[in-house]
Amino acid sequence: MLKEHGLGIRNGRIALIAPRAEAIKHATRRTFELTGMLLAPGLVNAHGHAAMTLFRGLADDLPLKSWLQNHIWPAEARWVNEKFIRTGTELAIAEQLQGGITCFSDMYFFPDIASEVAHRTGIRAQITVPVLDFPVPGARDADEALRKGVALFDDLKHHPRLNVAFGPHAPYSVGDDKLESIRVLVAEMDAGIHMHVHETAHEVEEALRLHGERPLARLARQQLLGPRFQAVHMTQIDDEDLALLVEHNCSVIHCPESNLKLASGFCPVERLWDAGVNVAIGTDGAASNNDLDLLGETRTAALLAKAVAGSATALDAHRALRMATLNGARALGLDEHTGSLEVGKFADLVAFDLSGLAQQPIYDPVSQLIYSSGRDCVRHVWVAGKQLLDNRHLTRIDQDRLLVDVHEWCTKIANSDKL
Amino acid sequence: MLKEHGLGIRNGRIALIAPRAEAIKHATRRTFELTGMLLAPGLVNAHGHAAMTLFRGLADDLPLKSWLQNHIWPAEARWVNEKFIRTGTELAIAEQLQGGITCFSDMYFFPDIASEVAHRTGIRAQITVPVLDFPVPGARDADEALRKGVALFDDLKHHPRLNVAFGPHAPYSVGDDKLESIRVLVAEMDAGIHMHVHETAHEVEEALRLHGERPLARLARQQLLGPRFQAVHMTQIDDEDLALLVEHNCSVIHCPESNLKLASGFCPVERLWDAGVNVAIGTDGAASNNDLDLLGETRTAALLAKAVAGSATALDAHRALRMATLNGARALGLDEHTGSLEVGKFADLVAFDLSGLAQQPIYDPVSQLIYSSGRDCVRHVWVAGKQLLDNRHLTRIDQDRLLVDVHEWCTKIANSDKL
Repeated sequence: MLKEHGLGIRNGRIALIAPRAEAIKHATRRTFELTGMLLAPGLVNAHGHAAMTLFRGLADDLPLKSWLQNHIWPAEARWVNEKFIRTGTELAIAEQLQGGITCFSDMYFFPDIASEVAHRTGIRAQITVPVLDFPVPGARDADEALRKGVALFDDLKHHPRLNVAFGPHAPYSVGDDKLESIRVLVAEMDAGIHMHVHETAHEVEEALRLHGERPLARLARQQLLGPRFQAVHMTQIDDEDLALLVEHNCSVIHCPESNLKLASGFCPVERLWDAGVNVAIGTDGAASNNDLDLLGETRTAALLAKAVAGSATALDAHRALRMATLNGARALGLDEHTGSLEVGKFADLVAFDLSGLAQQPIYDPVSQLIYSSGRDCVRHVWVAGKQLLDNRHLTRIDQDRLLVDVHEWCTKIANSDKL
Repeated sequence: MLKEHGLGIRNGRIALIAPRAEAIKHATRRTFELTGMLLAPGLVNAHGHAAMTLFRGLADDLPLKSWLQNHIWPAEARWVNEKFIRTGTELAIAEQLQGGITCFSDMYFFPDIASEVAHRTGIRAQITVPVLDFPVPGARDADEALRKGVALFDDLKHHPRLNVAFGPHAPYSVGDDKLESIRVLVAEMDAGIHMHVHETAHEVEEALRLHGERPLARLARQQLLGPRFQAVHMTQIDDEDLALLVEHNCSVIHCPESNLKLASGFCPVERLWDAGVNVAIGTDGAASNNDLDLLGETRTAALLAKAVAGSATALDAHRALRMATLNGARALGLDEHTGSLEVGKFADLVAFDLSGLAQQPIYDPVSQLIYSSGRDCVRHVWVAGKQLLDNRHLTRIDQDRLLVDVHEWCTKIANSDKL
C-alpha cells in the first residue's frame, strides 16, 4: 500500500503512479484531491444475475425448491421480457457502481439487452449467455441461445469493456450434447465458461445416485475444465475435486451470502487458496442475497473463511481485498486489463472515504476497509478513466427516472395474483 | 407492521400509535414526516466493550492467543485509563447512534466513567462491572471491582436510562469464591449477570479436562443461572446445556461476527429459538469484529443461522429484527421499558430511510431492512423521546472534537514501540 501518492490517467489507462510531489507535476486537465480516502482497484463482482434485482425480496426465507418453483420461476415466466431486463440491469448497475464495483459478471436472459445497458452505462462486464435444456425467456431452446450467443460474442469481440462468456446453467440442467457444443465453441473462440457447480450437497448426491459420477468429474471427462472455467459456488469439494481444480487451473467463484441464505453449505476458501486455486467473489443475484454489495460480501467471505478453516489467520483482510479485485479479474480472463493499480492497465478505480467515525482509528486502512466499512464509504468510481460515480452521484444514469421505472415494475409484480 | 401510521411521544414515552389521519389530529410542538422510512424500535446491542473501539483494527487476522497476549493485553496495560475510557466510550456511542442503536450493553474497565459518558450522551445502557481473578485497570482485585460496582449500582438505581449489571468475565477467569460473592450480591439487588460462556470448544474441553465439568453445568451448580443471566457467545451447546438454559430461563447473546472472526465456532441459534430460549444479538468489541454495526450483525445472524441449521427457513427477517430489538431488551431486563413500539414504553426509536436504490423494489420492508440495507440508511434516532440523531447528525456529541481526540489516541498507540 502506498501513502501520499498520486495516480495519473491517460486514454482511459493508468499512466503514472508516483509520490504526490512527483505526480502533481504531471497534473493536467482535472485533478482530484482524495484526502482521507483509499484509492483501490474497482471491485469485481464475479457472479450475479443482474436483472433479477427487480425480484429482490419478493420471496425470502423459503426452502430453495419452493423459492424457485412457487415464486421465482413463475415470476420469471410471467414478467421477464426485454423491458424488464433493461430496467433490472440498469438498477443492478446503478447499485453496483454506488458500491464501488467497476466490473461484474452477468448471467441472465436476453444477454444482448444486458450488454446494451452495460455499454451505455460505461461499466465493465462479462455478459454470460445462459444455456439450459429447456426454453427460457428470449431463447426457445439451447441451440437458439447458443446461436444468439455466438452472434453477440462476435458483435462485442473488440469492445473495450464488454466480453461474452458461455453459461451452461449447472451440471443437472444441461445435457452432455449441449456441453459438447459449448466445449467446441469456446475452444474456437477462446471464451470463458461460467457455470454453477456443486452448489449444494444434494446436487452432488443426486449426480452420484443417477450417474455414479460427481458433477465436476463429469465436466473434466467432457473436457470443459481449463483456465477459462469459472466454477460458481463449489460448497462441496473432496480431494479429487480439489485435484481437478488445480490440474486444470480453474477459478472458483465464492458466493458466501447466497450459500448461507439458501443453506447451501460452506465453500472451503482457505483450502482452495492454499492449494493455489484462484478464488474470486460474487454476490449472486439480488433475489437470493439480497444485495449486490461486493464489499459486504468480501467481509462475509473473510469472516466466514476463518470459522470454516478453524483458524483466525485464514483469509486476512489484504488477501480478501485481492479476491474482490485481481482474482475476480483473473477469473473473468481480464487480469491483463484490470483488477489492480498498475501502469498500463485500465483506470478502473474506486475511492473509499475512510474519514467517518465508524472507521476510526485507522491503524491499517485495508483492515478498516474490509472489516469496518460499509459500501456507503464509496465516493468516486472510474471505469476506463471515465468517472461514473462523482461524490456518490451517478453520472450516466438518471436515478430519478430509474426509480420511477423500478417502482412501476414493483407495483405490477406485487399486485399480481399469480404470486 | 403498520403502514401509514403515526406515533406520538409524551414525556419520553410512546403515547399514541394510530392511523395517520387520526394521529395528525394530536400533532403538537414538533412533527416529523417520515416519508419512505421505516420507523422501528431502536436496536439493542446486547454485548460489547465500548472503549475498545480505540483498538479497532490494531491487530487483525491473528490467533486468539497471540491477539490477546501479544497485542490487546499489553495495549490495555499501557493505555487504558480514565481518559481513554472517556474517548473510547464516546466514539462507541457515536458510532452506535449513527447505526440505529438506542441501547447497548457495555463490559469494560472504569464502568463509572463509561456510565458518565452514557449519561451525558443520552443513550440507554447496561453498564456491566467486569470481575476477574486478577488486577485490571481501575480495580486492584475482584473485591475492589465488586465494591465499586455496588456503589455504582446504588448511584444509578433510579436512573431512567442506565442500569448496572455484574460481569464475571468467563468461567475460566473467575474462581468459585468470586462467583459466590456475585451470586449473593445480585440476588440481593436483583441485578443482571453478564458473562462470556462457552465461547470456544477449547474452553469447554479444558474445563472438562481440569474439573470434569462443563462450564455451564458449573454455573448451574453455583446457582448463578436464572432469568437475569446473560450467557454471551455459547457456540458450544449440548443437550444438557440446552436443558439448563431452558430450565433457568437464561438469555443467550449471540455475537456471530466475533465468533467467525476469531474462529470460535457457530452458535446454533435456530435450535435455541425452537427450544424457547431468548436469543439477543451483540457486536462484541470493535477490536474483534471490527464494528459496532448491529444491523449488519443481525444480517449476518440471519444468514448464518440458515446454513448452521441446514434450512433456508431458519431465522427469517422478521424474527431477526425481533432478536435485535425486543429480545435484546429482554436479555438486559428492560423489556418492560423498551424494545418494541408499544404505548407506555420509552420512545426509543430509529427511522430507517428505505428510499435508496439499493433497497428497491420493496415487497416487504422488513426483508429489505435486514437483507438489503446498511446502517447508512439510519436517518433519525430517539432515546426516551429525545432526538440524538437528526438526519445523521449527532445532536449531543461534538463529532469534530471527538475525531481530534480519537486521532490523538491513534497516533500515540500506533507510534508506541511496545506494539
